[in-house]
Amino acid sequence: MEVVNLNDKLARINDFWHPRIVAELNDMHVKLVRLEGEFVWHHHEEEDELFLVVKGRLRMQFRDREEILEEGELLVVPHGVEHRPVADGETHVLLLEPKTTLNTGNVRNERTVEADWI
Amino acid sequence: MEVVNLNDKLARINDFWHPRIVAELNDMHVKLVRLEGEFVWHHHEEEDELFLVVKGRLRMQFRDREEILEEGELLVVPHGVEHRPVADGETHVLLLEPKTTLNTGNVRNERTVEADWI
Repeated sequence: MEVVNLNDKLARINDFWHPRIVAELNDMHVKLVRLEGEFVWHHHEEEDELFLVVKGRLRMQFRDREEILEEGELLVVPHGVEHRPVADGETHVLLLEPKTTLNTGNVRNERTVEADWI
Repeated sequence: MEVVNLNDKLARINDFWHPRIVAELNDMHVKLVRLEGEFVWHHHEEEDELFLVVKGRLRMQFRDREEILEEGELLVVPHGVEHRPVADGETHVLLLEPKTTLNTGNVRNERTVEADWI
């Protein structure tokens, strides 16, 4: 059991779109990620995914609309729903998702990374 | 899918130690709770429990020590571990836990409440 300071952990992340695991509970991982720019369209077959904006502003695009998340706001993207996160400026996000979650969901490409502990 | 603003939801909570559900993903609930004072000693048989301090300061007591969580810090209390949350001043906390979690864990007493959606 260790207290996790979100900003301390984020300060140790030097790249974008590469989620790092900071905690686990039951079958879930809590991850932190720095975002800037556009990600790829994808969905997760079985995993719902929570995004909580710690700093900055996240645009979550869906095929038919977009949701804007400011600091201190969260959104759950249910499994099966295609989405694309976009951050116009540097944005820090806490992710909560099942341990089985791959960052690019149903897609495997150059943006696919394994989440490791930080 | 709805964007949840943590502070807006917290402003609608008028009591202490009564977690409100603000989101669900897979088998987990995300809850918000206002804390002040001492809770009861308890543990959860199967559920790990995450505490993220949104405002204020949380002292998490264990039988052999205490961990202090400031704003922007989180801690996971594994299942089976006895704990007692204490907040010396008003403290706002985001909880993440399996849907089966009862606030008082293995104990049922006057502090036991059902979490409802807000």
